[in-house]
Amino acid sequence: MACNCTGGAEKQQQALSTSSPSSASPEDLLVLSSDPLHPANVICELCQLFYDNEWVTGTGGGISIKDGTNVYIAPSGVQKERMKPTDLFVLNYDDSVVLRRPLNFKPSACTPLFFTAYKLQNASACIHTHSQNAVMISLLYSNEFKIANIEQIKAIPKGYEPGYLSYFDTLTIPIIENTAHEEELEVPMHEIIKKYPHTRALIVRRHGIYVWGENIWKAKIYNEAIDYLLGLALKMKQFGIKPDSPIGSEKGQVDPKIYD
Amino acid sequence: MACNCTGGAEKQQQALSTSSPSSASPEDLLVLSSDPLHPANVICELCQLFYDNEWVTGTGGGISIKDGTNVYIAPSGVQKERMKPTDLFVLNYDDSVVLRRPLNFKPSACTPLFFTAYKLQNASACIHTHSQNAVMISLLYSNEFKIANIEQIKAIPKGYEPGYLSYFDTLTIPIIENTAHEEELEVPMHEIIKKYPHTRALIVRRHGIYVWGENIWKAKIYNEAIDYLLGLALKMKQFGIKPDSPIGSEKGQVDPKIYD
Amino acid sequence: MACNCTGGAEKQQQALSTSSPSSASPEDLLVLSSDPLHPANVICELCQLFYDNEWVTGTGGGISIKDGTNVYIAPSGVQKERMKPTDLFVLNYDDSVVLRRPLNFKPSACTPLFFTAYKLQNASACIHTHSQNAVMISLLYSNEFKIANIEQIKAIPKGYEPGYLSYFDTLTIPIIENTAHEEELEVPMHEIIKKYPHTRALIVRRHGIYVWGENIWKAKIYNEAIDYLLGLALKMKQFGIKPDSPIGSEKGQVDPKIYD
Amino acid sequence: MACNCTGGAEKQQQALSTSSPSSASPEDLLVLSSDPLHPANVICELCQLFYDNEWVTGTGGGISIKDGTNVYIAPSGVQKERMKPTDLFVLNYDDSVVLRRPLNFKPSACTPLFFTAYKLQNASACIHTHSQNAVMISLLYSNEFKIANIEQIKAIPKGYEPGYLSYFDTLTIPIIENTAHEEELEVPMHEIIKKYPHTRALIVRRHGIYVWGENIWKAKIYNEAIDYLLGLALKMKQFGIKPDSPIGSEKGQVDPKIYD
Repeated sequence: MACNCTGGAEKQQQALSTSSPSSASPEDLLVLSSDPLHPANVICELCQLFYDNEWVTGTGGGISIKDGTNVYIAPSGVQKERMKPTDLFVLNYDDSVVLRRPLNFKPSACTPLFFTAYKLQNASACIHTHSQNAVMISLLYSNEFKIANIEQIKAIPKGYEPGYLSYFDTLTIPIIENTAHEEELEVPMHEIIKKYPHTRALIVRRHGIYVWGENIWKAKIYNEAIDYLLGLALKMKQFGIKPDSPIGSEKGQVDPKIYD
Repeated sequence: MACNCTGGAEKQQQALSTSSPSSASPEDLLVLSSDPLHPANVICELCQLFYDNEWVTGTGGGISIKDGTNVYIAPSGVQKERMKPTDLFVLNYDDSVVLRRPLNFKPSACTPLFFTAYKLQNASACIHTHSQNAVMISLLYSNEFKIANIEQIKAIPKGYEPGYLSYFDTLTIPIIENTAHEEELEVPMHEIIKKYPHTRALIVRRHGIYVWGENIWKAKIYNEAIDYLLGLALKMKQFGIKPDSPIGSEKGQVDPKIYD
Repeated sequence: MACNCTGGAEKQQQALSTSSPSSASPEDLLVLSSDPLHPANVICELCQLFYDNEWVTGTGGGISIKDGTNVYIAPSGVQKERMKPTDLFVLNYDDSVVLRRPLNFKPSACTPLFFTAYKLQNASACIHTHSQNAVMISLLYSNEFKIANIEQIKAIPKGYEPGYLSYFDTLTIPIIENTAHEEELEVPMHEIIKKYPHTRALIVRRHGIYVWGENIWKAKIYNEAIDYLLGLALKMKQFGIKPDSPIGSEKGQVDPKIYD
Repeated sequence: MACNCTGGAEKQQQALSTSSPSSASPEDLLVLSSDPLHPANVICELCQLFYDNEWVTGTGGGISIKDGTNVYIAPSGVQKERMKPTDLFVLNYDDSVVLRRPLNFKPSACTPLFFTAYKLQNASACIHTHSQNAVMISLLYSNEFKIANIEQIKAIPKGYEPGYLSYFDTLTIPIIENTAHEEELEVPMHEIIKKYPHTRALIVRRHGIYVWGENIWKAKIYNEAIDYLLGLALKMKQFGIKPDSPIGSEKGQVDPKIYD
């Protein structure tokens, strides 16, 4: 697993330029900031983290943050761990007009999917990874992934009412079929969200996962917790344990045959 | 696996402010120090390490250090790898009065469990993780995890007398059932410690592990050694080797059928 | 997995010397540059990344960049994560004359293979790793590795025409037998490229993989995407799923018996 | 997996003190140096690396470098990733007199084993880890681990004559039984080296591995290559492939039934 802590000298040059953006264009000012919590900086920091987690290998995956009416989106085909704030697209949320177009990059094919999460789910951030845990789960489940009675479930909101899932609840994540082109996932994503209005995530078969949240930190936490649960479910299956079997009315009742 | 070495610029700002805490409130002075071995700094450093180990994914897990009568506790629902000293709660050990309450955070639900380790076990530090090794082991064992005849066992104290387990001893870690709310684990933890008074750790089924020690470094070492042993036991089981089978009166006697 | 972020102080001394190369020899000027995107700096940065990925453990693997008529090559038997720009060989592309020969190092045995990728495939960068994913795949497939219908395939070019593989295409990577000496792979590599003229990669049985690209970043992206696919295929096989089975005429049709 | 790049502030304080050791005692001057390649600094750098590789979890493992007649040894029971040069013992090679004794630490129980590697094998560095790959292999093989026909074998010296193993050779590593106390391994280590005079490594059952070399970098490379091979062998066994099966007189002949 890679560690990119040294970053590239490019990043340092970028950081320097952000300290004195006096000559920056109005478009560049949308992404240049010395505030580490500015969406453009957060996107770059998280993409490096996701790369280290092997979630955005090659140029896979994508990420977007909606900040007011500005929607920040990582471009298509970029190495996520080497991305700089000036590589980002900025769109207007209301009319999808491109406010900032980076040189040499194309818009992400995930753009309509990010907007779907914003419009239908009132989300303000969306993360898309090619996590191998998500791909493997999509090969082992047909239409839904379910996991129950694992503490980490409590990191995920109920959705249908305020608050989070309890330990005794079941987390359900819908799975949709992949399409030839990423943007073609917009309609299936629209349909599946109508069917699962409370979900915060969507697995795309043989492809990866989309996770969204009320803000980028919520989206990051949901994504980490769900990936933990997907990976745990794979380990459970390797030992012949069903991830969604009920543990019964008595606390902790588990089929004794799985025990040593 | 993530590497967060670059930290956030927030952390650097935090570090700066700790260098000149002249205007800090008395409550903040409880957590602001330029000494890297101050409990508040150690907690933040170790939480980043635990995050990199995938032990506190999302906002999972918790940690506490008792220093004299001050008990430092990471707050509820915080991203462990982004935590700052000023995010910590400080409680008085004797009467549980809150000496410092961070803005925007709730106390950790682990608080009564940390105090149980301090009161019953004379511990001064307690680590709680959602380690997948611990969760998997809790799905494969009923009431106790046992492992014998592995060198790493020697990192764990006997408990019933001074000194550490020998290579020929068996390490036993009790397993308790999970509850709907973390604080409800207080009574079962109390009971299990009465039953296993020499244990330094407690596995919570489908949840994770609690490990404590005489100081934070001992707790860290026990936690690392135990997680190593849990992970090794899972690998042994994948190859059909029982982690707690006796190796006989002759040194190194092992069932020859497991050999190539 | 190792993190080498602290680097060695040697590296910093090296960096200092690159800032004031006034007294450097003409040969050294071929590899000393303050530009982080200079081929000599990129090779060192990527070798550290590959080490962290366990692709070049020990002194395994190799890397080369062709920049105009200069061919930069990591030397034989060097610890990749500790390599400095001054450790590199530089050869002339047209006549293979050595333009720069580092002290105490021998040329890489991969040299003729890198040139084969350049001459036959019009590549400008070539990466060779001892990835365990590649070695394991070479033990499970005879002459070709195939994988189909995985999103990550879209990172790999078609080769026979512009553009990239589609989600519904099959990626095929030829496998050749290993030889006693690395340079003896030149003829088999020549032959297999004639047979698979559109491939960007070549697996060497019980040895590792060669991946090349139009430039170093393309080669890096292809290598990451292919290693992701090799690792995913191993996981699929562990669950009894064939990586190259067709998903049928209907989108997403998968053998239902593999589902839970 | 942990990344400790930020190190601790202690390390930086240590580094500062090494810059101005004017007031240092003669004993401390044995371990204080601004040269990153000084044995005391190399030991600390490598211990952090080994910790990140999960080879010295808790306080497991050990390391020693012989430099002239000075033998540098990490102390007993120290957290390897937090170790400082001033934590090291220095012994005289000829008479084992302790030249430097750190405060608050006990000598490593590995000391007689390190000296055995130096005396019997003419080594100048010895690495001891609790690698789980080594422990697992020790549970699956009786007296010897063997692996053949894997490129990475070529990183290991023949021993019986100059030069390295060829691709068609078999690497053999002896396995000895663990003992109650680490220092009791001295006699078995002595005996096994007499029996396997050309080995560079020794697996201790249910414990870990010792690897030595002509200098620390050779020892590091051998250790990395051997751990790679142990880990690969475990993966091969999971797929039912024997790591030491001959590939026949024809190059690359493999039992076709293992293929897809």
